[in-house]
Amino acid sequence: MKDTLRSLTWTGKALRLLDQTLLPEQLVYWDCTESRQVADAIRILAVRGAPAIGVAAAYACVLALREAQKGGGDWAAISSRFHDACTYIDQARPTAVNLSWAVRQMRDVFAASAPEMAEENLLARAQAIEEEDRATCRRIGENGAALFAGRTGLNLLTHCNTGALATAGIGTAFGVFVTLAERGQIRCVYADETRPLLQGARLTATELMEDSIPCCLIADTMSAAVMRDRRIDAVIVGADRIAANGDTANKIGTYSLAVLAAYHHIPFYIAAPFSTFDFTIQSGKDIVIEERDADEVRRFGGVYTAPRRVPVYNPAFDVTPAELIRGIITERGVLTPPFADSISQYERSLSNE
Amino acid sequence: MKDTLRSLTWTGKALRLLDQTLLPEQLVYWDCTESRQVADAIRILAVRGAPAIGVAAAYACVLALREAQKGGGDWAAISSRFHDACTYIDQARPTAVNLSWAVRQMRDVFAASAPEMAEENLLARAQAIEEEDRATCRRIGENGAALFAGRTGLNLLTHCNTGALATAGIGTAFGVFVTLAERGQIRCVYADETRPLLQGARLTATELMEDSIPCCLIADTMSAAVMRDRRIDAVIVGADRIAANGDTANKIGTYSLAVLAAYHHIPFYIAAPFSTFDFTIQSGKDIVIEERDADEVRRFGGVYTAPRRVPVYNPAFDVTPAELIRGIITERGVLTPPFADSISQYERSLSNE
Repeated sequence: MKDTLRSLTWTGKALRLLDQTLLPEQLVYWDCTESRQVADAIRILAVRGAPAIGVAAAYACVLALREAQKGGGDWAAISSRFHDACTYIDQARPTAVNLSWAVRQMRDVFAASAPEMAEENLLARAQAIEEEDRATCRRIGENGAALFAGRTGLNLLTHCNTGALATAGIGTAFGVFVTLAERGQIRCVYADETRPLLQGARLTATELMEDSIPCCLIADTMSAAVMRDRRIDAVIVGADRIAANGDTANKIGTYSLAVLAAYHHIPFYIAAPFSTFDFTIQSGKDIVIEERDADEVRRFGGVYTAPRRVPVYNPAFDVTPAELIRGIITERGVLTPPFADSISQYERSLSNE
Repeated sequence: MKDTLRSLTWTGKALRLLDQTLLPEQLVYWDCTESRQVADAIRILAVRGAPAIGVAAAYACVLALREAQKGGGDWAAISSRFHDACTYIDQARPTAVNLSWAVRQMRDVFAASAPEMAEENLLARAQAIEEEDRATCRRIGENGAALFAGRTGLNLLTHCNTGALATAGIGTAFGVFVTLAERGQIRCVYADETRPLLQGARLTATELMEDSIPCCLIADTMSAAVMRDRRIDAVIVGADRIAANGDTANKIGTYSLAVLAAYHHIPFYIAAPFSTFDFTIQSGKDIVIEERDADEVRRFGGVYTAPRRVPVYNPAFDVTPAELIRGIITERGVLTPPFADSISQYERSLSNE
């Protein structure tokens, strides 16, 4: 992946974000010097992808403390302003758990820090979250690739974007593709365009081309025909929130792919780091699904493609039930059914560190 | 349906076509005075929908004879030019059988006509095909509506466009919606936008709004979530070619919906007139699937939404196997499995007239 396509870079004074809404035709960076700018960038999807949202939110909390300190007053006043800003960041989007996971960590670091050390500690934690995500992606890539050991000519199918633009590293599901491509095992990665916001066409196709991974872009309507006619070996996608029973919220259309994969006897995998698991909820029923603006469906590229007043339903995510998932590829190995057990064991392994 | 949205009108001198590629934002009509203009309009999808393609092709054959006659020479020369033009029309698109069905009829009428009667006979047959399609749509609407007798609050899901823009009448699957709406039985018709060419968003949503049928537009990625979360009572779509065993070619994405409907225990219906059946082929394996230009997937509204050189697979249709189809709604009733039997009986009833 070329360095020009990095989703985010901490400059010391600002968080530099690549405006992903303008890809692939325009390469525009924003230097966010205020926490609200980062939160708003998350809201409008200038930066997106569950892991990248977590990293961006962590740096936003660093900016939040700087703003709070500029406001003056005693530590209680600064602390109050810091937490208000954290709340604003936390509410940018509801579904990806990585956002609140990162903000909660930053609040904890703040609470544990002496005033004179708070900024340094927050920055160190944000950088650690970014570094950790990079290493996690690499391990997910290796654990996912191990599922296909000894096989070549693989046809894989994915949805939305899970690569460098969605993370701080090589990606989650995309990290598996990168790793398999390095080993010469891939024949073709089919990428759904992923309407309404076309993250597959705009971002994943761009990353696949940049990384010279053999690929093919399809409309979402074509996934079933491709599964049947092109001998797909596996479907691998990312996740925005995984419940304790394995139910997984991910980009709208994921549930559809999981059903289609089951019908065609194709294994369906989720690839996600620890920060995507929400061990506090028992099932997908408890996951809040963000509904976005109707005009995302009614138009594209500034052009209305439907009647301007037609009613629209525009959920950004859906929930795939655990029974349709063959395995969850994590940085500590591939979790398998029954997920209530494997996820609980995974949680214990994390907390034992 | 407002008269302004008629897909085609014979003016006596020309076939007036609504350019459906520009809907819903622009209402542009073309007066085609040459048969090639009609064939090219079919090729670029200015007029589309299997039944409408059949009607347009029939009128194109009338124009073809006028051109052939202008060229002078003896009847053999005229006949040769007429048949060449018919071949050009016939090859405009490969998948919808209605096109070759209409052209074959016009060739038969030509062959059976004395030279001085040929033009009058061809025009009469084209008008009969148009009239017949109008009556057929109405009967399909009634036969489809009868499946839901006594039920109200229906939530229905459809794909692509099967309404007045796709036919000479109220439509096929859309005719069922019109009929049910007249009887107050519909709660909501969900329309897939139908990428890549967005016939659902541009055409079906426009027709639903024009006819004041309660409706909701969704991206193709949302169909599975809508089936699960919105209690869909039935999926009803059109067809481009139906084989003798019931395998059905229709707009890409139809097969996906059929699989999803089966998973959710939702009945899946095809609505189509006699002209859509191809009794000469035994199964869907024999249906030629048109593959269209990669840029249909790479861009929309003149804007590239993907890397300009990314490889693309762009089949315009897919084949839904008969075992996923609950019934085929025709103008003579609803055909049910086993389709080899019911379709064969249907063929006999047509040929006994």
